[in-house]
Amino acid sequence: MNALTPLGMVSELPSENQTNDTLLAAAAEEPKDYFVVRDGMKFAGTHLLVDLWGARNLCDPGFIDAAMREAALAAGATILHSHFHHFSPNGGVSGVVVLAESHISIHTWPEREFAAVDLFMCGCCDPHLSIPVLQRAFAPERILLDEQRRGRVY
Amino acid sequence: MNALTPLGMVSELPSENQTNDTLLAAAAEEPKDYFVVRDGMKFAGTHLLVDLWGARNLCDPGFIDAAMREAALAAGATILHSHFHHFSPNGGVSGVVVLAESHISIHTWPEREFAAVDLFMCGCCDPHLSIPVLQRAFAPERILLDEQRRGRVY
Repeated sequence: MNALTPLGMVSELPSENQTNDTLLAAAAEEPKDYFVVRDGMKFAGTHLLVDLWGARNLCDPGFIDAAMREAALAAGATILHSHFHHFSPNGGVSGVVVLAESHISIHTWPEREFAAVDLFMCGCCDPHLSIPVLQRAFAPERILLDEQRRGRVY
Repeated sequence: MNALTPLGMVSELPSENQTNDTLLAAAAEEPKDYFVVRDGMKFAGTHLLVDLWGARNLCDPGFIDAAMREAALAAGATILHSHFHHFSPNGGVSGVVVLAESHISIHTWPEREFAAVDLFMCGCCDPHLSIPVLQRAFAPERILLDEQRRGRVY
């Protein structure tokens, strides 16, 4: 398979029957490829799983909403929607920001000074650029980071 | 560290100054521990990253919303909020369901018959129970699954 050819878009016409005109028309109609190529790998997007330990400011949904929006913008993402929920009595917060380029989420356990964040971004956004924002907002003593490239074609 | 003692809850009183009464009072005030223990490991929750290839029904936000809600309920989760966004002209859908036990998300690339799903659930929910719902809804030819235990204490 030619990895540059979107699945399902391969012409069923034998190549000897295709004129330059039909090839040009097919190219004009070919949908934009939203997958990215980096380090010789073609994939849908980068998914970071970030565990914050010894973290602060984990109880205030307004503060966390603002921090996650700042994190999204730092990565070059476009915010479409956000929703944050404040649990009681333990004070934890769960929230998501839906992006034009996927999403970010956070779930906090203030009683353990722990937060689990994930940042999934496709296109030209770089979720690594969100990490300094998380560091400033939550001042974690320790960060564990796992990176997955979702939708790898090769 | 005693892993059963929530961080920040260790008494600063020397043990010889603690009476049975003060120990009982401390136990009564100790917050509920929301971390889970499984296979000898204590952690915040299970996070599944699921790549669906050769999948169908990736263009309809209403259908996808219903499927993701069914997936959440199959895992034993409680739905707090959901939001789905339909992109054009490529027809992809991005959406999240915020749960009392964390979240699930989906992002689809119909032009590649690809969807990236993540299911993060804490407490007694089991996100593996959502997989058959995804299989029925999207009929993928191939599923790639990665499991992470977030917030591992030991």
